[in-house]
Amino acid sequence: MTTARGLTPPSPANGQEEIRRQNLSAVLRHLHVHGPISRAELTGRLSLNRSTIGALAADLVASGLATEEAPTTSRRAGRPSLVVSPRSDRVWVRAASIEPDRLRAARIGLGGRIIDQWEAPRPPGATPLDTVAELAVLIRRTERGLGPDTLCAGGAVAVADTIHELDGTIHLTGADDKIAAALGPDFVVADLADAAALAEHVRGVAAGIDDVVYLHGGPGVSAGILSGGRLVTGHGGRSGKVGHMVVHPYGRKCGCGSRGCWETEIGAAALLRAAGASEGTSPQAVIRAAEWGDVLARRALDVVADWLGLGVANLVNVFNPDIVVFGGALRELYVAGAANVRHCLDTMALPASREHLQLRAGSLGADAPLIGAAELAFESLLADPLNSAG
Amino acid sequence: MTTARGLTPPSPANGQEEIRRQNLSAVLRHLHVHGPISRAELTGRLSLNRSTIGALAADLVASGLATEEAPTTSRRAGRPSLVVSPRSDRVWVRAASIEPDRLRAARIGLGGRIIDQWEAPRPPGATPLDTVAELAVLIRRTERGLGPDTLCAGGAVAVADTIHELDGTIHLTGADDKIAAALGPDFVVADLADAAALAEHVRGVAAGIDDVVYLHGGPGVSAGILSGGRLVTGHGGRSGKVGHMVVHPYGRKCGCGSRGCWETEIGAAALLRAAGASEGTSPQAVIRAAEWGDVLARRALDVVADWLGLGVANLVNVFNPDIVVFGGALRELYVAGAANVRHCLDTMALPASREHLQLRAGSLGADAPLIGAAELAFESLLADPLNSAG
Repeated sequence: MTTARGLTPPSPANGQEEIRRQNLSAVLRHLHVHGPISRAELTGRLSLNRSTIGALAADLVASGLATEEAPTTSRRAGRPSLVVSPRSDRVWVRAASIEPDRLRAARIGLGGRIIDQWEAPRPPGATPLDTVAELAVLIRRTERGLGPDTLCAGGAVAVADTIHELDGTIHLTGADDKIAAALGPDFVVADLADAAALAEHVRGVAAGIDDVVYLHGGPGVSAGILSGGRLVTGHGGRSGKVGHMVVHPYGRKCGCGSRGCWETEIGAAALLRAAGASEGTSPQAVIRAAEWGDVLARRALDVVADWLGLGVANLVNVFNPDIVVFGGALRELYVAGAANVRHCLDTMALPASREHLQLRAGSLGADAPLIGAAELAFESLLADPLNSAG
Repeated sequence: MTTARGLTPPSPANGQEEIRRQNLSAVLRHLHVHGPISRAELTGRLSLNRSTIGALAADLVASGLATEEAPTTSRRAGRPSLVVSPRSDRVWVRAASIEPDRLRAARIGLGGRIIDQWEAPRPPGATPLDTVAELAVLIRRTERGLGPDTLCAGGAVAVADTIHELDGTIHLTGADDKIAAALGPDFVVADLADAAALAEHVRGVAAGIDDVVYLHGGPGVSAGILSGGRLVTGHGGRSGKVGHMVVHPYGRKCGCGSRGCWETEIGAAALLRAAGASEGTSPQAVIRAAEWGDVLARRALDVVADWLGLGVANLVNVFNPDIVVFGGALRELYVAGAANVRHCLDTMALPASREHLQLRAGSLGADAPLIGAAELAFESLLADPLNSAG
């Protein structure tokens, strides 16, 4: 708000070029997010006149970013408006993830379509940087047999925020320049929960919603947060470590060294502990047992879902979001314990912040981090279509 | 990030005008934030060429927003560069606050100088809207004897987020359109902690820092938060209610209806309770007694400062800020209990987020909400200087 930006000197050419860039960006972004659309509809959606839209679409077609064709059916008389489509087959990005238990790589086309996807297990305890060589192999695999006339618009990798060692201790990872350097020029490195949050914001259950708290459950719990449509990343890209909010000061020791962190109460281990289940049991099995009427499992689920609700209420009071989205392992916990979560919110969240709040399970499932990474990778092309398209 | 904005059709005039508006905005903003500066320095700071800066400065002078004059002393040979100054005497805004215990109104000049200021007590329990008539009287008082050739660029009021009733219950207030309507056209209504945070970000201890958690203590505790230089306001402008994070689930009942909220552990009442002080005692008296070596007071301060540190650690894990600023009543508590707060951060905040973190007492004192309100009021002039200057 207060930073005086360095601006280029005004000149007619510069001004016109800048407006054209902004308009091309708006059109390509619309195609990417919303898919094929007629020129006539674009005119209305972007408040640009017909001849401008025609010229912009022609530019995008000439650069190989879009196609134009007559609609297959037209309900109106007269010459039908041409339909503009993103070239998802030709224009793509590299999207990858370094997750607690696996590595994944995908080739994702303009428009957000996953064209090809590969995965491999991640050695336990390996740092993200340790996995980069293997990840690069997966990435190359998604590009086998690729024709010559395609455009790679960028690459991004979503990295899980913590490494859980076998002895229970936790190391924080976070965005790392070395990973980017190892994977290729201009590779973007993002936090896994941030990428998944972005995916749900662009293409998922939080589409069109600007104030979003997305909670991701894995071995730990972290959040991707959008405020006013922008990711809250923090000073070093390490925001959203909500699993390490202390909610129970006299509670259990956490692998991070603190005590009573939220994830000690809502993580997979907490549910198994509360249910008295043996170590090999999956949290899903406890949740299913609870749903089938097992009393001990139900009681365990209630306890854990109450703690989930308490932490969600805290975040609602802090962020006043429109929506809280539950992803990763928290998706199932939320679905099974939604009544508890809602009850906690009714008693602990401030009424004014509770009023319009939506609670939702994520809609993109396990693909969310990859789809979000693709959004980050496409960003430079979307911001300046003709320059980036070469 | 994904919203296709409606853009006006490109035309040479439009493009040039837009660039000129952006440049005028950058120059006026620089004058407003950093004060008088020579044309030569402006050229460097804004990466604009000399003739462009000359033309922009002339425009601002012609509109009565700035003055230009030869510097009183010049260390260099040759014709000295003219010094451009904001017209703090002529261009001003209305800035007001509705605080738990008082109403304030100030006239604040371009550049952030408080020209005149008045205050009156606030009747306990009165809603913000109840106080508007009296606030309007204070505002008018700041404008007595004002010459004809001045420009009021806007108005804003900072409103405390909660009303504490005599029976201890808490009602949340928040931005209210009716207050804005009652005070005048285009009056901006903001949360008090948000306004104070903005003030510390523009002119205080957090100047030049983009990821800021500002904590404001009054009867309750709330926060103004900046992420990437922008205020995190939430869906309904009600973010930052950090006093109602539950940090002690088995703790005391809070006036909001919940239990174990952060403000039940660090509010003024908590300190008095821990010290066994009688109700009329001021928290400052307890803090001073602790500093003078009173054992009971010191123990009470330790307990409360530990809770302060716990909540700060939570916010650091959630936001990964560069700086946490303590304002209002929390300023003194932090200064007296800084060692405890730092110790809590060392054990509870994730090392990567703790590493570069600064902890600071606010530098603008009680004026922060008014100065922040003025920043909000000046925003439309700063964004489009010539249009707003009429």
